[in-house]
Amino acid sequence: MVTPFVAPEALKRQLGRPLDLRLGANESAFGPSPKALEAMRLRASRAQNYGDPESLDLRTAIALQEGTSVENVLVASGIDELLSLFCRLFVNPGDAVVTTLGSYPTFDFAAAGAGARIERVRYRDDQVDLDALVGLATAQHAKIVYLANPDNPSGSWQSTERIREFTRRLPANSVLLLDEAYHEFAPSNGIRVSQPPNVVRLRTFSKAHGLAGCRIGFALAHPAIVQALQKIRMHFGVNAIAQAGALASLGDPGHVQSVVERTLQGRGRVEQLARELGLCPLPSATNFVAIDVGSKERAQALLRALLEHGVFLRMPSQPPLDRCIRVTIGQPEAMERFGDIFTNLIKRGI
Amino acid sequence: MVTPFVAPEALKRQLGRPLDLRLGANESAFGPSPKALEAMRLRASRAQNYGDPESLDLRTAIALQEGTSVENVLVASGIDELLSLFCRLFVNPGDAVVTTLGSYPTFDFAAAGAGARIERVRYRDDQVDLDALVGLATAQHAKIVYLANPDNPSGSWQSTERIREFTRRLPANSVLLLDEAYHEFAPSNGIRVSQPPNVVRLRTFSKAHGLAGCRIGFALAHPAIVQALQKIRMHFGVNAIAQAGALASLGDPGHVQSVVERTLQGRGRVEQLARELGLCPLPSATNFVAIDVGSKERAQALLRALLEHGVFLRMPSQPPLDRCIRVTIGQPEAMERFGDIFTNLIKRGI
Repeated sequence: MVTPFVAPEALKRQLGRPLDLRLGANESAFGPSPKALEAMRLRASRAQNYGDPESLDLRTAIALQEGTSVENVLVASGIDELLSLFCRLFVNPGDAVVTTLGSYPTFDFAAAGAGARIERVRYRDDQVDLDALVGLATAQHAKIVYLANPDNPSGSWQSTERIREFTRRLPANSVLLLDEAYHEFAPSNGIRVSQPPNVVRLRTFSKAHGLAGCRIGFALAHPAIVQALQKIRMHFGVNAIAQAGALASLGDPGHVQSVVERTLQGRGRVEQLARELGLCPLPSATNFVAIDVGSKERAQALLRALLEHGVFLRMPSQPPLDRCIRVTIGQPEAMERFGDIFTNLIKRGI
Repeated sequence: MVTPFVAPEALKRQLGRPLDLRLGANESAFGPSPKALEAMRLRASRAQNYGDPESLDLRTAIALQEGTSVENVLVASGIDELLSLFCRLFVNPGDAVVTTLGSYPTFDFAAAGAGARIERVRYRDDQVDLDALVGLATAQHAKIVYLANPDNPSGSWQSTERIREFTRRLPANSVLLLDEAYHEFAPSNGIRVSQPPNVVRLRTFSKAHGLAGCRIGFALAHPAIVQALQKIRMHFGVNAIAQAGALASLGDPGHVQSVVERTLQGRGRVEQLARELGLCPLPSATNFVAIDVGSKERAQALLRALLEHGVFLRMPSQPPLDRCIRVTIGQPEAMERFGDIFTNLIKRGI
């Protein structure tokens, strides 16, 4: 089957044995909140009942957290579904969309599925090139500009001020899909910003909230956009167990805060490890670190060697970032084991 | 928010109190298999990990049960998502799709969302009019023919032989979406039929398997169709907890068999109740019964009165079936309470 990524489960099948260290999909190593687990168990016990197609309790809690109103919030089965819905809403076949070469491949699937012409800008200094994005969006009359901030796979981050300025410079007819999947790990977490009507923010419970397997995320958008999506969204698409888990997780901010703190500590240790091995970690505002290993060939060789040791990592697919491997921050013990294996491989000259 | 149905949760909010008897959404009163519950609890405990985007274990189990191969099976977030995907795959804006007036409204949303022109045939003798469907599909060069068998909301059922003959008469360029959500309750359950390449069968874990809140269903289709859907489906759309629950439920056929038996017993009692009250139950091959109460106005009045007593039912929206109320089969105690309330209302002359 064709998927935007090779999934860990597919790798396990290829490998014929379990993965010892699952550090490739930017999943949370710290799991969901115990309160989310309890809420999911409770809701599962009446799995025969349909969930609320309006996700109203969850949207109300999200609106409260984000300082917005419930009419601005749309819940869906993760950012993947939101990308697909927004591409279908805004794009007619042949319209241009603009993104960064190598950014989240699922956006490319969503755009292609809507018949879009996909135009890409290259990274500059291993960061998203905002000037080039504005230029290309203007030249191409882009219907959608897709920007991940923090960015995956680079881990880089643009400040709130820079995003605000970028937004002002976008053509009036372009909608910015601002993918903030890694938002909680960035310095801007908790800062409320005013949002122009042509900006759609995308958030997920897959990362800091540790609910990737549940498929749940949300969009913050102008009420007219939320309303327009009613015509094409999956009304009964968001499973009730995920709704219950996400709601309970929002009610346990201490858990997310602890996840972020432990992730940042682990990130520091990985950066230090890379430097000790003579490698350069790219600055990260996420739960992963891209480590520059010098060349695409070496990155590929390291990924293969790591997989032989049961370690699952991924690497960026496009230059210039394809000289990196991307390490998801795990639990301290997992990172120690990774450190040992990785050090060994580097010392063996791979 | 606009949804194809008013959800029980929305009704609760309107009513300002819980629903005592939830007999309107054709949910299973008998819940999921204990094995499914256990599997879901286990998978929820590592909710931070993405699920298998290929749903391979589940598809393998489905293929085994259905006597087909894994390449013929596509898993998605319920029949709702499958309807949307197939409409997007087969329909260009302006193309005709053909369905029965009053059948599952979510199909209408999916078709309209893909830009289809929706053409409808009326029920005949409270059953889907297969001859009229063939005629309209031929006249309109329909890309899709949507047929629910057993049918919702009538509960009626067409035999395997009639469906086979119907399929042979369809225009070669029409794809039949055969919605078999209520399959397990029908006399044809367990009968394996050969499937022409232009027939797509849609199944769900929402009904007999008691997993409506999990959002999981599947399509049985030609491998070329399954393959084509790879381009537009949500690869990581099916939540991992639902995959685990559905897989475990397939491994507990005794549970589903018991659900079907208890449902058929309950159905018999509701039919008897209706007759005792001088009303006519429509023959049903599902987990619900449409009861003819004589007029749309009386059906609406009964629904309102029932809701005042905390009983949630629905009624067909279109003639001639809108002279009916639709009762989902519940547990014996629930059906007794429903029987008492309903009898009272009828005797009060509503």
